[in-house]
Amino acid sequence: MIKAGIIGATGYAGAELARILAGHQNVQVIWLGSRSYLGQAYASVYQNMAEIIEQSCLDDNIGELAKQADVVFTATPQGYLASVMKEEYLEQARFIDLSADYRFKDVAVYEQWYQIGHKSPQFMKEAVYGLCELNREAVKQARLVANPGCYTTCSILTAYPLIKEGLIDPDTLIVDAKSGTSGAGRGAKVNNLFCEVNENIKAYGVTSHRHTPEIEEQLGYAAGRPVTISFTPHLVPMNRGILATEYASLKRKPDGSLPTEEEIREVYKQYYAKETFIRVLEPGVYPETRWVEGSNYVDLNFKIDPRTGRIVMIGALDNLVKGAAGQAVQNMNLMFGLPETEGLSMAPLFP
Amino acid sequence: MIKAGIIGATGYAGAELARILAGHQNVQVIWLGSRSYLGQAYASVYQNMAEIIEQSCLDDNIGELAKQADVVFTATPQGYLASVMKEEYLEQARFIDLSADYRFKDVAVYEQWYQIGHKSPQFMKEAVYGLCELNREAVKQARLVANPGCYTTCSILTAYPLIKEGLIDPDTLIVDAKSGTSGAGRGAKVNNLFCEVNENIKAYGVTSHRHTPEIEEQLGYAAGRPVTISFTPHLVPMNRGILATEYASLKRKPDGSLPTEEEIREVYKQYYAKETFIRVLEPGVYPETRWVEGSNYVDLNFKIDPRTGRIVMIGALDNLVKGAAGQAVQNMNLMFGLPETEGLSMAPLFP
Amino acid sequence: MIKAGIIGATGYAGAELARILAGHQNVQVIWLGSRSYLGQAYASVYQNMAEIIEQSCLDDNIGELAKQADVVFTATPQGYLASVMKEEYLEQARFIDLSADYRFKDVAVYEQWYQIGHKSPQFMKEAVYGLCELNREAVKQARLVANPGCYTTCSILTAYPLIKEGLIDPDTLIVDAKSGTSGAGRGAKVNNLFCEVNENIKAYGVTSHRHTPEIEEQLGYAAGRPVTISFTPHLVPMNRGILATEYASLKRKPDGSLPTEEEIREVYKQYYAKETFIRVLEPGVYPETRWVEGSNYVDLNFKIDPRTGRIVMIGALDNLVKGAAGQAVQNMNLMFGLPETEGLSMAPLFP
Amino acid sequence: MIKAGIIGATGYAGAELARILAGHQNVQVIWLGSRSYLGQAYASVYQNMAEIIEQSCLDDNIGELAKQADVVFTATPQGYLASVMKEEYLEQARFIDLSADYRFKDVAVYEQWYQIGHKSPQFMKEAVYGLCELNREAVKQARLVANPGCYTTCSILTAYPLIKEGLIDPDTLIVDAKSGTSGAGRGAKVNNLFCEVNENIKAYGVTSHRHTPEIEEQLGYAAGRPVTISFTPHLVPMNRGILATEYASLKRKPDGSLPTEEEIREVYKQYYAKETFIRVLEPGVYPETRWVEGSNYVDLNFKIDPRTGRIVMIGALDNLVKGAAGQAVQNMNLMFGLPETEGLSMAPLFP
Repeated sequence: MIKAGIIGATGYAGAELARILAGHQNVQVIWLGSRSYLGQAYASVYQNMAEIIEQSCLDDNIGELAKQADVVFTATPQGYLASVMKEEYLEQARFIDLSADYRFKDVAVYEQWYQIGHKSPQFMKEAVYGLCELNREAVKQARLVANPGCYTTCSILTAYPLIKEGLIDPDTLIVDAKSGTSGAGRGAKVNNLFCEVNENIKAYGVTSHRHTPEIEEQLGYAAGRPVTISFTPHLVPMNRGILATEYASLKRKPDGSLPTEEEIREVYKQYYAKETFIRVLEPGVYPETRWVEGSNYVDLNFKIDPRTGRIVMIGALDNLVKGAAGQAVQNMNLMFGLPETEGLSMAPLFP
Repeated sequence: MIKAGIIGATGYAGAELARILAGHQNVQVIWLGSRSYLGQAYASVYQNMAEIIEQSCLDDNIGELAKQADVVFTATPQGYLASVMKEEYLEQARFIDLSADYRFKDVAVYEQWYQIGHKSPQFMKEAVYGLCELNREAVKQARLVANPGCYTTCSILTAYPLIKEGLIDPDTLIVDAKSGTSGAGRGAKVNNLFCEVNENIKAYGVTSHRHTPEIEEQLGYAAGRPVTISFTPHLVPMNRGILATEYASLKRKPDGSLPTEEEIREVYKQYYAKETFIRVLEPGVYPETRWVEGSNYVDLNFKIDPRTGRIVMIGALDNLVKGAAGQAVQNMNLMFGLPETEGLSMAPLFP
Repeated sequence: MIKAGIIGATGYAGAELARILAGHQNVQVIWLGSRSYLGQAYASVYQNMAEIIEQSCLDDNIGELAKQADVVFTATPQGYLASVMKEEYLEQARFIDLSADYRFKDVAVYEQWYQIGHKSPQFMKEAVYGLCELNREAVKQARLVANPGCYTTCSILTAYPLIKEGLIDPDTLIVDAKSGTSGAGRGAKVNNLFCEVNENIKAYGVTSHRHTPEIEEQLGYAAGRPVTISFTPHLVPMNRGILATEYASLKRKPDGSLPTEEEIREVYKQYYAKETFIRVLEPGVYPETRWVEGSNYVDLNFKIDPRTGRIVMIGALDNLVKGAAGQAVQNMNLMFGLPETEGLSMAPLFP
Repeated sequence: MIKAGIIGATGYAGAELARILAGHQNVQVIWLGSRSYLGQAYASVYQNMAEIIEQSCLDDNIGELAKQADVVFTATPQGYLASVMKEEYLEQARFIDLSADYRFKDVAVYEQWYQIGHKSPQFMKEAVYGLCELNREAVKQARLVANPGCYTTCSILTAYPLIKEGLIDPDTLIVDAKSGTSGAGRGAKVNNLFCEVNENIKAYGVTSHRHTPEIEEQLGYAAGRPVTISFTPHLVPMNRGILATEYASLKRKPDGSLPTEEEIREVYKQYYAKETFIRVLEPGVYPETRWVEGSNYVDLNFKIDPRTGRIVMIGALDNLVKGAAGQAVQNMNLMFGLPETEGLSMAPLFP
């Protein structure tokens, strides 16, 4: 039995983690950390867990937790884990961080986009970027996994094979992404009130969203050179789900022709056919967030537009599962030698 | 391995059944019947099941299905099963009917409220009303289970203990119920279009909804005499969930006093404390549909109003799970000697 | 040109008032008071009013406002207006208060249900309860109008004629009401976040909601004696709208028969046929909130249930218009001798 | 008093037209045509219009209507008006067509994208494309106005000034658009049911949506040469509203620098500052559909991204108002010499 602790267990991502782990047969959750609800019964905060989770919320004593736990999940504000992390903790337990603190190799990029200083850059190199399908072997060995962002998981997986194979021009990549509101967190802000979000769609973080450099770094590895993209997130009146609509110019063959639908599909299959959690849909069937809700799946598809020479790639996932807690559990499974799908085999809930 | 078939597998209740059974380790689904989508891949109709269900939709040949299957679920229009049922089918397989065909003992009540003739009233006596918590032992032996309606499961379980114990006057019972829109089915009707349901709440079936006599029959058994109630359903702009707000006059004690909060709570505990799927909430915490979504739970609570001498009882469930497919699986588990919770242990999904 | 000021102009009710008054041809708004957004452009807070309202938010200097304005609207927290009101203000301007401060004649009732002391009970007698259709003549003369609550406007108008005519037993009245989320205000609270409200319905204030005594007081005047009712509000995932489903036992005639559908309908027509803002719907057509959204209408209908001897009455309105700002403007029109519908003739917006 | 008729008065666009015209002081609606609801009271189909519209639905006898009316609005399926139009009708009344039949100058483009033959191409040249802000003078003289599509109105107005002024490269233009569900019409289709649309976002018509060539034709006029763009519409779980997020590469100046924020803003102001219905928002404030709901406004803004050399332009409107019925009324006002804003001065409804 793996002993697990969660710091930040009462945010939406932390709560999804608590929910998934409650159904994981190899895990015992020994610590539900929440400063805001310290001492309160967890099920009084998330009443869906009544008679399932009996524990109360503990503090965020990460030193004590590292001693007691085999794995520590941190679903905490940006900068928190970086500010408390020590080598001894990493010797005592394995860490899966859902914040952005260890997602970048270059501390300057982090500090520029997040506008905070990084307190423990010495661990940035070691940290493994936990996009399981791309970094599976490295994750297995990792002491410290940087769990990817929700938009980034969707955006990267959707474009990755075509960039890696040199089929699209990375500098033409435009990612127009749409997210459900749980991605905005559970903080009490006027902008996230029901009446402000309902019956509305808006863009935000235009040209400046923090997931931009994360996508660029990972796709840069695929391209073998730095990549600069346009990324615009939008807020959609629904609870869960991310849809990424991605546009890029196809590279033409020496004879000037575009790659064919079949050639592109073959590349996607080559990369993802064996991946349990990635579903490349049938031709003409495009991803929709409703078909992945509550599951760890990423649905993908694409369409070539001969008129413009562009390809439209579309990906969908549940931001709280594959975009956060589900992927964190998938990383844990890899790290502890469990079947990768353990605790993650729930079918999407519809409607 | 139990061989199961579903007739009506592409309605919302049938699809939820297919989804739950896909995760049930003792069941193999051998038949997904759907006239509307005959021959089409099931996962092309419910794309959430892509790479989970590989089968295509079959017809509704119930004779052949009865031969091949151990259990047949029918999520079919009112009158369908009654029109095809034969003794030999019941000798070949066990039946769990999600329609209303066998929910009543009195054929006249059925024919009056449903306005159709009943073609096989000879099975009505034998059929067991599959409200598991009330009829557990009878369900275990049944060949034919009438799976209760969604509103009725919620309405009955909420008031049952107090009526059974004679604490409220059944003739004062008023059930004001609210349902998510999946309860209206997947038929293509203008009234169920997004723009017609969204940003709206309405009552329907005022004084005439078909679940009324079903609630009355079962509560009548509890009261030991016929019961007549007021029941008003409402349509709420959400996918899943039923909330029943129930009002009744408390019976006063010989000294004129009302029962106390503690006395009432004790009765609820006595009936439900051992029931896995019924959660009587803490004092002051009332059921909300979000806390049961995607699960087989019924959440209950109540409040005494000394000003009026009434009690307000509130119950919540997921209409597609405990109100339909989940309860059908619970019935199947009972009928086949499996743990009652098998395949039903998913925690509610929030948000 | 009537000079109007609004204190509390950035809550949802205050904003609706600002919006309606911006389209009222006899009114000039000279003061938009908002402590929270003091000094900010009003249209930066409510961006829908860009290029329509050019003013910035002022403070809540009610003394100065009373001097400058002909009419002062207060959409302020409970207790605010009572704590600052003076005789001299009432001599300078007329007041329409959207809070509960002057809705009751008995200060003890206010203090018990609102749990705050009342600082100016001397004005409670004088204040006119501004339910226009019931108190039209008194409103015309009033210096101080207590604008009714949203639930109460709907609940009272729906039952009023039948209680006034002695057709139902007031002590059997049960009001089960459902409201859109704008009724919960624009305060930044976790409970009102999109993800907490969406895909959910819940009861709240069970047996204790503050609108209960307000309904009781007004219906008591109709009945000619004190009335005690059950009232349960529910929160619905939509922006606007209140639906009240009301149950009561019909009084039987000396021969034991119930009043007929036609007799009841005749009574409703008698009270409301000439009322522009009350629409008694065709038999069999029940009110839905979507049909009144954005308008000052109240839609009403009813159904007799001979099985139980009860009548089900249903009413619907837009909580921000007829339930708050629209009715406030209707009161203002009456007070200043304008046509009652001035500025209020917008048809409901659908979908 | 202008006598107006509507053919197709019970679709969502037709109903919005009926609603707006009911409040227009210079118009008398003499004909509400609806084959589906022939003979039924209009207010029984759109119950929001109870006691506002007393008429019943008539047939689509366009010959008779042309004789009686001064202006005929057709909110009919593609191909309908083209199949019945005659020179004599245009001599009797003026026509505003909300379908696509006369939006193109090249019949081949229409027939290719709409996959139907055009029955009266002789009127295509004469028809004026009724995007009021661009073609105001031509509209005033027109006998036949082709009212633009909802997506196209938003997409064109957002990019027009920058293309006209040569500030962006039209061939790099990518329009990622999001629409509320009323845009999908009131037809009874499974795909538009509440439970299918709610809690979901999806792309549709990928690389093939019919509004693509309409945008291209109009922006081609601005560019002075043919333009080919990428256009992807998405369906959002809300009733009304379109948001267009548009990406294009800025043309660099001879010195290699990009245009500045101020230069771009100046161009937008030059084109739109005098337009009542176009609001160019403050820097940093981006359009959201909630701020235009129920109004005829288009909100616009943009952001330069020096990292990519692209500009992100964003526009928002209400698809039923400025995207359909409101613009149709604006066109009518122009054609009949009325103030352009007559009947269209409603402020956006929020929340």
